[in-house]
Amino acid sequence: MLKRVLVKHVLGATEAMDTVLVEGWVRSRRDAKDFSFLDFTDGSCLTGLQVIVPGELPDYSSWINQCGTGASVRIQGSLIPSQGQGQRWELQAASVEVIGKADATYPLQKKRHSPEFMREIAHLRPRSNLFGSVFRVRSRLAQAVHRFFTERDFYYIHTPIITASDCEGAGELFRVTTLDPSKKIDSSADFFGKPTYLTVSGQLAAETFACALSNVYTFGPTFRAENSNTTRHASEFWMIEPEMAFCDLGGDMDLAEAFVKDLIRDTLETSAEEMAFFDRFVDKGLLERLQWVLDRSFERVAYHDAVEILLQSGQSFEYPLQHGLNLQSEHERYLTETHFKCPITVYNYPKAIKPFYMRANDDGETVAAMDVLVPGIGEIVGGSQREERLEVLESHLKAHDLSAEDYSWYVDLRRFGSVPHSGFGMGFERMLMFLTGVSNIRDVIPFARTPGHADF
Amino acid sequence: MLKRVLVKHVLGATEAMDTVLVEGWVRSRRDAKDFSFLDFTDGSCLTGLQVIVPGELPDYSSWINQCGTGASVRIQGSLIPSQGQGQRWELQAASVEVIGKADATYPLQKKRHSPEFMREIAHLRPRSNLFGSVFRVRSRLAQAVHRFFTERDFYYIHTPIITASDCEGAGELFRVTTLDPSKKIDSSADFFGKPTYLTVSGQLAAETFACALSNVYTFGPTFRAENSNTTRHASEFWMIEPEMAFCDLGGDMDLAEAFVKDLIRDTLETSAEEMAFFDRFVDKGLLERLQWVLDRSFERVAYHDAVEILLQSGQSFEYPLQHGLNLQSEHERYLTETHFKCPITVYNYPKAIKPFYMRANDDGETVAAMDVLVPGIGEIVGGSQREERLEVLESHLKAHDLSAEDYSWYVDLRRFGSVPHSGFGMGFERMLMFLTGVSNIRDVIPFARTPGHADF
Repeated sequence: MLKRVLVKHVLGATEAMDTVLVEGWVRSRRDAKDFSFLDFTDGSCLTGLQVIVPGELPDYSSWINQCGTGASVRIQGSLIPSQGQGQRWELQAASVEVIGKADATYPLQKKRHSPEFMREIAHLRPRSNLFGSVFRVRSRLAQAVHRFFTERDFYYIHTPIITASDCEGAGELFRVTTLDPSKKIDSSADFFGKPTYLTVSGQLAAETFACALSNVYTFGPTFRAENSNTTRHASEFWMIEPEMAFCDLGGDMDLAEAFVKDLIRDTLETSAEEMAFFDRFVDKGLLERLQWVLDRSFERVAYHDAVEILLQSGQSFEYPLQHGLNLQSEHERYLTETHFKCPITVYNYPKAIKPFYMRANDDGETVAAMDVLVPGIGEIVGGSQREERLEVLESHLKAHDLSAEDYSWYVDLRRFGSVPHSGFGMGFERMLMFLTGVSNIRDVIPFARTPGHADF
Repeated sequence: MLKRVLVKHVLGATEAMDTVLVEGWVRSRRDAKDFSFLDFTDGSCLTGLQVIVPGELPDYSSWINQCGTGASVRIQGSLIPSQGQGQRWELQAASVEVIGKADATYPLQKKRHSPEFMREIAHLRPRSNLFGSVFRVRSRLAQAVHRFFTERDFYYIHTPIITASDCEGAGELFRVTTLDPSKKIDSSADFFGKPTYLTVSGQLAAETFACALSNVYTFGPTFRAENSNTTRHASEFWMIEPEMAFCDLGGDMDLAEAFVKDLIRDTLETSAEEMAFFDRFVDKGLLERLQWVLDRSFERVAYHDAVEILLQSGQSFEYPLQHGLNLQSEHERYLTETHFKCPITVYNYPKAIKPFYMRANDDGETVAAMDVLVPGIGEIVGGSQREERLEVLESHLKAHDLSAEDYSWYVDLRRFGSVPHSGFGMGFERMLMFLTGVSNIRDVIPFARTPGHADF
């Protein structure tokens, strides 16, 4: 029995083939006088396979009309050099079998659809050129993440999704429960014997493993129950969080900058076809912007100096800035796009605007935090050196009104063989948006969860 | 400045080195007359680095007592051929700096600890030989999963964690909510406008992507709110679920069997040191059992024939068996270990004990389901061909009392360009237990979640 060959391999053939079997879907059909053209895909790559269906095939007229957009077909034929422009091969069909029809009600007819409509048919949209490309790139980017860390002797850790601690008070939490929400029941009767939530970060758990295996990373789903309907926020998203023992803020910035560049380089190389498509149809200038980041070294600037630059820029910002405030996206973009004209890393942020676990600097004012900023997006990575001094950490917990008991296991890392250590977080979807130019986070997630939306 | 070298690279050195910098933790110290031995680790590998600390180092007597079990140290020295047995290299220290002390209260003193105690100090246990090994192997196994599917042109899909559907009625669900559980509030006021849960499987969502990209897989956390306290059940665990378009049950079994063997082979190769440790200290006979599976072809047997074999075996089982019932672990193990003496795949199960989405066989009695069974464990993979015929699927939904409206998106896959497709699920932790011989699932998960336990 003939074995199916994926279109990506058919198109990569080095010589003509007498008999090839392909199985997939018709993107569109064009009928000529005594034959038909099929644009055929199986989702393995962006480019479709051109298929010539000769009119002399048995019963041609009885089934050719079923080979419409969306129909699934099995085609056997010979691969021959293409007569057409822009393609090397075409398939001369010897037999065509319709597997599953798609009638005129098929929502993905060959025409332009709005992003909103495509979100309503999120179960069908990966069959489109755009979303097929997004999710192939998403898959390759995930592999690149694992390759990057494995090459550098990092171990991958699955930190818990259900947690009883709220980590850093990083935002609103989803409650996880088996109690009937229509009844009033004490949480000690709940499944885990206490209130539990969906994690907002695996960092604290990752720290325990860095303090044992040296270099580790997490890559898993994280959650925010914030009621914000923006193009950049989702309730469920994936995050990458490396954590390194015996690593200070300088080493942390080194790794983060190398990581950003590696992912750009990998995506340009492994997804050239999709990237050209995004550059042409989604975000003109995308490839140039990515190459711009690749070609330049990251400049590093202390938060204090960055704020000075912004204050003296003469720019009028929507959010006025002063020392001690968080940088907004517009400030970040001004710094990287206009002032430095290169990707930058801002470090040493004011203590007051950062979480309890960041390492206090000697100036008494700042902590060893850093953010990596890129054009078009602003912050793409945020990280810090962690406070490894027992007494300092304990005083931070107190200052943040956090219970020493709840964090006793975390504090233990400073009690027994404490080491300087650092890490950072990168939002996987945000990186994917930066790489593809897709501007709405709902369109880079298979089935996005946002306030009011948990469909499919 | 000298750069830190990981112990795994130090031990792999091909020649002696004048100056090496290592940073990590003391496992134990032994004092001789005018020098000390340190057993030193940084978690990068199982084997420790032997360090000789000469008594003539400056102020030796003032700090050597701080180099006890658990202390973190920075050591510079020269790598020289070892005098001792069973090791190639040792480090002759030229300077030793204590970074973080660990006093006598350090819970991981060098002695045997019970598994229960180790679970109480889950934040420290990865520093031990056993748990360091488990989590290094866990990390490599995750990489092997991604490699296996990438080599075969599968795309990795992140299916949703929060879901409004209960998939297959696969068990008890955790509710995800932002409502105050102490108040009685209607669920239409909840964050997503309806009741939502933690996913029990990504399969249905993966099917939508297989029907677009052909070969896909998920690898993510899944959840069961079952109140069962066994050594094999956790409330949160990771699952791998491939899904293939244009693939029937035979192709599904082919892939599952190849997958099991590939993961065994990969682990034996990439984790030889840890595997020898498990074979010696955790599960004598482990390597032999794994090799046994590797060396044998999988036999395939229909459920009906498997039950006949069991009924005629003369064995007395704890759970008596008859046609139409699920196989229990004892039955599965008898089949693979005693009767067939090889790994086996049981297929064509009774329709009545399987979920609605499995493809009905022509006999009207069975569905195209399959389970892969291995010695010591029983079922390690479960899968099926999916029902791709619109009318048959709709009748299954009705028979299972499921709402056609809730599943309309799933049914759409059969309405538009439907294709035969198949897939399976493998519990990542169960595979890890099979590979390491560790018998309690709590001990292969960084921070396990079980009824009453959501600590750290």
